[in-house]
Amino acid sequence: MTKKYLQIVDPIHDFITVYQQEVELIDSSVFQRLRRIRQLAGAHLVYPGAQHSRFEHSLGTMHIAGQAANVLRNKGYLDANDSENIRMAALLHDVGHGPFSHLFEEVLQKKKKNSHEDIGQRIILETEIGDIIKKSGFDKTFLAKLAFGNSKYQFMNEIISGGLSADMMDYLLRDGYFTGAEYAKVDFMRIIHSLDVHDKKLSLDKSALHSFESMMISRYQMFKAVYFHKTVRSAEVMLIQAMALADSELGLTTDDIEIYVQMTDELVISKLVSLEPKNTDLRRAKQLAIEYQERKLLKCVYEKIFTRPRMRKMNITSLQNEIAKMSKVDESEVFIDVSKTPSIPLAPSKKESQSIILTTKKGEGPKESYELPISEIPLVSAISGFMDILRVYTRKQFRKKVEMAAAVILGENNQ
Amino acid sequence: MTKKYLQIVDPIHDFITVYQQEVELIDSSVFQRLRRIRQLAGAHLVYPGAQHSRFEHSLGTMHIAGQAANVLRNKGYLDANDSENIRMAALLHDVGHGPFSHLFEEVLQKKKKNSHEDIGQRIILETEIGDIIKKSGFDKTFLAKLAFGNSKYQFMNEIISGGLSADMMDYLLRDGYFTGAEYAKVDFMRIIHSLDVHDKKLSLDKSALHSFESMMISRYQMFKAVYFHKTVRSAEVMLIQAMALADSELGLTTDDIEIYVQMTDELVISKLVSLEPKNTDLRRAKQLAIEYQERKLLKCVYEKIFTRPRMRKMNITSLQNEIAKMSKVDESEVFIDVSKTPSIPLAPSKKESQSIILTTKKGEGPKESYELPISEIPLVSAISGFMDILRVYTRKQFRKKVEMAAAVILGENNQ
Amino acid sequence: MTKKYLQIVDPIHDFITVYQQEVELIDSSVFQRLRRIRQLAGAHLVYPGAQHSRFEHSLGTMHIAGQAANVLRNKGYLDANDSENIRMAALLHDVGHGPFSHLFEEVLQKKKKNSHEDIGQRIILETEIGDIIKKSGFDKTFLAKLAFGNSKYQFMNEIISGGLSADMMDYLLRDGYFTGAEYAKVDFMRIIHSLDVHDKKLSLDKSALHSFESMMISRYQMFKAVYFHKTVRSAEVMLIQAMALADSELGLTTDDIEIYVQMTDELVISKLVSLEPKNTDLRRAKQLAIEYQERKLLKCVYEKIFTRPRMRKMNITSLQNEIAKMSKVDESEVFIDVSKTPSIPLAPSKKESQSIILTTKKGEGPKESYELPISEIPLVSAISGFMDILRVYTRKQFRKKVEMAAAVILGENNQ
Amino acid sequence: MTKKYLQIVDPIHDFITVYQQEVELIDSSVFQRLRRIRQLAGAHLVYPGAQHSRFEHSLGTMHIAGQAANVLRNKGYLDANDSENIRMAALLHDVGHGPFSHLFEEVLQKKKKNSHEDIGQRIILETEIGDIIKKSGFDKTFLAKLAFGNSKYQFMNEIISGGLSADMMDYLLRDGYFTGAEYAKVDFMRIIHSLDVHDKKLSLDKSALHSFESMMISRYQMFKAVYFHKTVRSAEVMLIQAMALADSELGLTTDDIEIYVQMTDELVISKLVSLEPKNTDLRRAKQLAIEYQERKLLKCVYEKIFTRPRMRKMNITSLQNEIAKMSKVDESEVFIDVSKTPSIPLAPSKKESQSIILTTKKGEGPKESYELPISEIPLVSAISGFMDILRVYTRKQFRKKVEMAAAVILGENNQ
Repeated sequence: MTKKYLQIVDPIHDFITVYQQEVELIDSSVFQRLRRIRQLAGAHLVYPGAQHSRFEHSLGTMHIAGQAANVLRNKGYLDANDSENIRMAALLHDVGHGPFSHLFEEVLQKKKKNSHEDIGQRIILETEIGDIIKKSGFDKTFLAKLAFGNSKYQFMNEIISGGLSADMMDYLLRDGYFTGAEYAKVDFMRIIHSLDVHDKKLSLDKSALHSFESMMISRYQMFKAVYFHKTVRSAEVMLIQAMALADSELGLTTDDIEIYVQMTDELVISKLVSLEPKNTDLRRAKQLAIEYQERKLLKCVYEKIFTRPRMRKMNITSLQNEIAKMSKVDESEVFIDVSKTPSIPLAPSKKESQSIILTTKKGEGPKESYELPISEIPLVSAISGFMDILRVYTRKQFRKKVEMAAAVILGENNQ
Repeated sequence: MTKKYLQIVDPIHDFITVYQQEVELIDSSVFQRLRRIRQLAGAHLVYPGAQHSRFEHSLGTMHIAGQAANVLRNKGYLDANDSENIRMAALLHDVGHGPFSHLFEEVLQKKKKNSHEDIGQRIILETEIGDIIKKSGFDKTFLAKLAFGNSKYQFMNEIISGGLSADMMDYLLRDGYFTGAEYAKVDFMRIIHSLDVHDKKLSLDKSALHSFESMMISRYQMFKAVYFHKTVRSAEVMLIQAMALADSELGLTTDDIEIYVQMTDELVISKLVSLEPKNTDLRRAKQLAIEYQERKLLKCVYEKIFTRPRMRKMNITSLQNEIAKMSKVDESEVFIDVSKTPSIPLAPSKKESQSIILTTKKGEGPKESYELPISEIPLVSAISGFMDILRVYTRKQFRKKVEMAAAVILGENNQ
Repeated sequence: MTKKYLQIVDPIHDFITVYQQEVELIDSSVFQRLRRIRQLAGAHLVYPGAQHSRFEHSLGTMHIAGQAANVLRNKGYLDANDSENIRMAALLHDVGHGPFSHLFEEVLQKKKKNSHEDIGQRIILETEIGDIIKKSGFDKTFLAKLAFGNSKYQFMNEIISGGLSADMMDYLLRDGYFTGAEYAKVDFMRIIHSLDVHDKKLSLDKSALHSFESMMISRYQMFKAVYFHKTVRSAEVMLIQAMALADSELGLTTDDIEIYVQMTDELVISKLVSLEPKNTDLRRAKQLAIEYQERKLLKCVYEKIFTRPRMRKMNITSLQNEIAKMSKVDESEVFIDVSKTPSIPLAPSKKESQSIILTTKKGEGPKESYELPISEIPLVSAISGFMDILRVYTRKQFRKKVEMAAAVILGENNQ
Repeated sequence: MTKKYLQIVDPIHDFITVYQQEVELIDSSVFQRLRRIRQLAGAHLVYPGAQHSRFEHSLGTMHIAGQAANVLRNKGYLDANDSENIRMAALLHDVGHGPFSHLFEEVLQKKKKNSHEDIGQRIILETEIGDIIKKSGFDKTFLAKLAFGNSKYQFMNEIISGGLSADMMDYLLRDGYFTGAEYAKVDFMRIIHSLDVHDKKLSLDKSALHSFESMMISRYQMFKAVYFHKTVRSAEVMLIQAMALADSELGLTTDDIEIYVQMTDELVISKLVSLEPKNTDLRRAKQLAIEYQERKLLKCVYEKIFTRPRMRKMNITSLQNEIAKMSKVDESEVFIDVSKTPSIPLAPSKKESQSIILTTKKGEGPKESYELPISEIPLVSAISGFMDILRVYTRKQFRKKVEMAAAVILGENNQ
C-alpha cells in the first residue's frame, strides 16, 4: 500500500497505473523520445487520426502485461518480482525503435544492420535506462533479454511477444481506436484471464479459444485495412526508399546510440526535405520526401496474393530490373512491396507459430493441456496465405507501362 | 450526383465526405502543414493520447458545419452555394495557426502582433489556397471573412465561431476522445437539427436547450480537466516563455507568410533546444525548451479564482515584480498564468455572449423567438466566474519562497 | 485461487465475476424474478431501449461494491469477510422491489405500507434467500441490515446507498447505456479508487472531487432527460394511479411475501387490463392500464419549479380538488405529480446530505479530512432547487380547462 | 419540409426519425405488442443485458432501410414513394412474430403451420395495420409482399431480407450492444453507401467488399457466442418443447389473428407455468416451463459439426429414439438440437445465396458488375460448414447414459 504510484489517463485502458521505478524510466529523455515516433509511420496520411506514438503504446503494453502477470501470479507461476520485471520489460520493448518505427526497421534490414531489438538491448544496457533499472534494484541484463523475448523463461517471453502477447493486444486496440477503423474489438480481458502455463510455455484455457480466434481475425482485418493498406504502403515505400538513399549522407543507421536516440519522425523528414542534392541518390531521396510531405504518392499498378513458397523463391531486385527493362522505365521508378507479416505474430523464437497450447479441465479431474494446430481453427487457418501480398508501385506518369510489364511478368493483376 | 468526392475515415464522425475543391485545398502544402501542429499543444504531456492535430479538427469542423448548413438549407435560409462556402470556411478556420496553436497566439499577443485569424486571412488571400478557391469558382475575399466570422451574414458567421459553432462541437468531441478524458458527450446532432435563424442571428429550438446546457458543461469540464489543467498549463507556460524569449533570434512572429507556413511544433522545439546561448534570453529560452522536452516542469505554488472585475484590474507584470521582490527570487523565475477563456465561447463579434436566442412553436401558431439570458440557464450561469483562475508557477527550488510571497500579496492560496 | 466462480458478460462492466454463494442467491427464484421487473418502469415508452431489469442492475451494483470494498480492504479498513458481506448486500439491495419498482414504492407510500426496503429485509430473513446465506456461513440478520444501509458500520452502509454508492454508480451508467441518453459518463473507477474512511464515514480523496461533481451533474441530467421526463412520468402517473385504484381488488400491497414475489411488471399490467369493472375505481384502473398499454398518455398542462419550503407546505390532495373545482372537471381527471428526488441521493440515514467528506494529503504529512458543504461545489450547488418540479396532467379533452385553472391557482406556467 | 415527424432516441442509431404515417403504425396495439416479445428469446439467461425487444429492432430496421433507400434514390433507382414503401415494409417485417420470436417459429414448423411471415402478411392485410396503411395512401397488398421479400422488385426485397439487408445490419449491431458480446462491429454505413443495382438485383461496390466480409464474420461470431450458444439453446430447446406440448391446450398456434396478437413472452410463460397437469404432455410442459423460469437448464452431453449433406440425411426423430433406446432413458428426456442457420442469411427467395454481385468502375469507363461466388471470399468461405451443429441435451440425472449413447451412435463427441 505504501508503494508510490501515479495514474495516467489513457483512452484505451482508462487509467494506467505507473509505479515509482517506472516513472523514472518514462521520464528519461530516451523514453520521452518515443512521443515523437508515430506508432503507424505513414498511416495518418490515410487515417488522419492515427497520430498516436510508441510512447502511449509502450505504456499500454506495460499495463496489459502487468495484468497478465497478475493472473499467472495468482495461479502460482510468478512472484511479485517477476511481475515487476514483466511490466518493465513490456514498457521497454519498443525503446529501440527508430524514426517511423517499422519503416526504419526495413531500412536496417536493407543495410544488414542490427534490428531495433538489438538497438533496444544496447539502450537498456548502455544508457541512463540501465542506470535507473540498477538503482531500482533490478537486473538490467535480464531485462535486456526479457524485453525482446529472449530470456530463458519461455512463458514470460510470450507475454511480451507472440500470438498471445500484451504487445499485440495493445496495438490492435490502440490502432483501431486512433485510426477509427475499429475492426479491432479484442476481448483481451477474456484472453488474459484464461492464460495458464504448460510445460514452461504460455497456454490458453480452451473456453477462450473463440476470443483468440476473434483476435487473429481482427489482426487480419487491421492488416488489410491499415497496416498493409495500399495507399498507406505507398507512402511508406517512399519513406523507406528516401531513408535508404540518404542513409550514408545523414548517418541514420548509425551505431552511435547517443546519435541514434536524437532521431524522430519529424526531424528525419525535415532533414530529408532539406537535403542538398549532391548526387542522384540524394536528389531522389529529397524528391521522395517532398512528395511524401505533400501527399503526392506513388500509384499501385499491380497487386497479387502469392503462395508462401513462391513468394520465398522470388528475388525482388531481379524482379524490379525485369519490370523496369520490359516497361522501359528507369529501375528507380519501379517499387516493389512485399508483405512480411506472418499470419500469426512471431513467437519470441522468431519462428512462425503453427499451433497454440490449450488447457482444459473436465469435471473434477486435473487440468490437461494439448497443442492445437492453427490449421484446426476454422477462421485462423483461412487467413493463412491471404497475407502474402506483392504490389508494384510507380510514379503516375509511368503507370500504364509498368502496369503492363508487371502483368506480363507476374501474371494476372488482381488489383 | 455526379459530384466527385471521397470519404475519409475519422474516429469521431466515422466518415467525412470531401468534395473535389475541398480535396484540392486539403492537398495543398499550406494545409497539410496542419498535420504537424497539435490541437492541444502541451496536453499530451499529461494525456499521452492527445497527439491529434489541427488537420483532423479542421476536417471535422467542415463536416459539422456542412451538416448545420444542410439543416438551414432545408429550412430555406441557405442555398447550395452558401452551404459550400460554409464548408470551405470551416475547413480553413484554423489555417492561420502557428506552432503550438493557441500558445503561439499568446506569443503573438505579447508581441502585439496580428492574431492567427489575421494571418489566416492573409493565407487565404495570398497563397495557393486563394488560387484553388478562385479556380473552383468561389470568392476568396468572402471566404477570408467568413472563415473568421467576419462576413456580413451573422448566422453564417455563427456556424463557424461562437457558442453554437461547428468549431466548438468538433473540438469538444475530439479532445475528449483523444485525451481519454471523455467529459465531452456533446449531443451535437440534436443541437444541429434544432438550429434556426431569427433576425439574421442563429437561434436554437427550445427543445434542444438542455443539449446546449450539457455542451456548456462539457466545455467547463474540459476546461478544468484538460485545457487549463495545472500541469498542462505548466508545460505551456514554459513554451510560451521560450518562444517569446527567442522570437527575435528565430523570427517566429514573422510577417513573411512563406516563412510562417514552414513552422511546425517539432521544428520549433528542435530550434529552441539547439539555440546558441548568446545572451540571457536565449539561454533561458533554451533551458525552458530542454526542460519541457524532458518533462521537468514548473511547479504551481498558488491558485485562486478571482472575480472578473478584480482580474481585469490586475497588472500581471507588476504582480510578477512584486512577488519576485518579496520572495527574493529573480523575476524571470516567477511565472503568472491567467485564464483567458470566457465562460461561453466568444461570438464572432469577439464580445462575450450573455444570451442565447431560442425559437419555439406553440400548437398551430407561427414560430416565436426570444432571447434567454445565460443567467437563466441554471448550470450555465453557475459556471460563470469559475473559469477566471490565476496561478503562479516557479522552479522547484524556489517553491517555498514564491508560495509564501504569492499568498501574502494575493490572499489565501486555494490550491 | 481455488474459490469457485463464474463470469457473466455485462455490457457495462464487460465481465462480472460471481462467486459460489452468490451464484446460489442469484439462481433462487426470488432473485430470478428481478429479471421481470424493469429498472425504469415506464421509461421504455419514451426510450425504447430501456428494457433493462433490476436483475442486471443488482449484478452491476455488486460488482462495483466489490471493487469499492477491495480499495478499502487494501487501505486496511476491511477484511475478506467484510468484503463478501458488502458484495452480497449490494446484490440484494433491490430484492424487495415490487412490480414497476419505484412506482410500486409510490403506491406503497400512498397506502402507508412498508417500503421496498422493509419488504427486502423480510425477504432476506424469511425466504430461501436467508437459507442460502446461512448455509454459506454468513449472517442473514447482519445482511438484512447492511443491504438497506442500516448496519452499524456507517461507511459500509454508504457503499450500498447514498451519494458515493455503488447503487448510484451502476444505475447512472446502466440507465444511460440502455436508454441511449448517454448523459451518464460516470468516471466511477476514479471515485472508487479515491475512497477512504474518516471518522467511520466514507470520504473521498480531494483529487477526485471533480469526478464527484461530474457524477452529480450526470444524475441531474438523467433526472431531467429520463427519470422525471414529462412523458415518462405521464405513463408512470397512470400506472401508479391504476395500481392504487385496483390494490384492494388485486391485493398488490399484500403482506404475504409468498404472494408478493409472484408479481412482475407484465403480470400486473395484464391483471389490470383484464379487471372486471365492478365499480368506478376498477373501471378507472382498467381504463388507465389499457391506455398505458396503447400508449395513449395523459397530457401535461402545467409545469413549474417550486422552492423546497413552498413545495413542502403544499397539500397535493387539496390542490387537486381546487383545480378540479375551478376547471369543472372531475377530480379523478386531475393528476398532480411532484418530484421527490433529492438533489443529492439520500444517505443511509435517509436524511438529505448537505456535505461530503474530503481527504487530502500534503507533502509528507499525514492524511487530513474535512467536511465540504455541497454549497461550495459550484455546479452541485447550482443543481439544488432545480429538481423540485410540480406538474399537472389530465386527459386530452380537459386540456384547456385544467391548464387555465392550474395557472390561476399555482401561478405562471413554465412548461 | 413540412412533413411531420418525431425523433426517437435509440442507443444504436442515436436518433430514429419517424414520419406521421409510421407513428400511426407504431402506435397501434398490434405493433406496441412487439415491446413484449424479446428479440433474443432465451439469450438473456446467459447475457442478462439481452432484454431488448422486436419493437426497437423494427424501428432500427426501418431506419437502416430508409438510409439504403436514400442511397438508391440518389443513384436514380427509386423515387420518394418507393423509399417510403421500403421504410414501412422494414418497420413491419417482424410484425407477425409470436412469443419468443424464432422459438415460436420452430413450434409453428413442428406443427406444419404457417410461418411468422404468413401471419405477418395476414396482420398487414386484415388488422388495423392495413387500415392505417390505406388511410395514409399506400397499398397494403404491395406492402404485405414487400415486408417479407416477396414483391416483384428483387432489389427492394433484398433491402428487407438477405445478406445485405437492413434487418441483419440492425440485429447484428443491436444484439451485440445489448448482450455486451460486442462481436458485432458492422460498418453498415460503408455497406449502405456502396449499394447499387445490377440486373434488378442489389449489388455492392467492390470497395466495400471487406466490410461485407467483416459483417459475415460478425454474424458467424454472434452465431457461436450468442444465437447458438450451448446454454442459450438449452433454455430455448426447453421453451420450444414446452410450447409444442401445450399447444393444443393453450391454442398457441391459433389461426385467429385477434387471439394471436394477444400473446407475449411473459404471458405465455405464465400460462405454461400455471398449466393444470391433466396429462403427461401438460405435466411435462409445465415442468419444463418452471425449470426454465428457475434457470434449471438441460445439460448438453454431445456436440458435433456435421457436413451439410450428412445433416440433411438425418432423421431427428429416429435419432432421438435410437439414443433413448440405447441409453435406456425415456425418449422425452432426449432433446436434439440442430442449427438451421445458413452460413449466409437467406435471400428473399429463401434459397441460400452462393454469391454476391459486385459493381466496379475502372478509370473513366462505365460501371461493370459481376457475380462473385462466396467461395472466393477467404473468410466467408471458411465459415461455411462450421455452422451446421448438432447437439444432444438431457436432464442432469441422465447425463452419463445419454452422453455415452450419443457418442456410440453419432461418433466422437467434440464438445
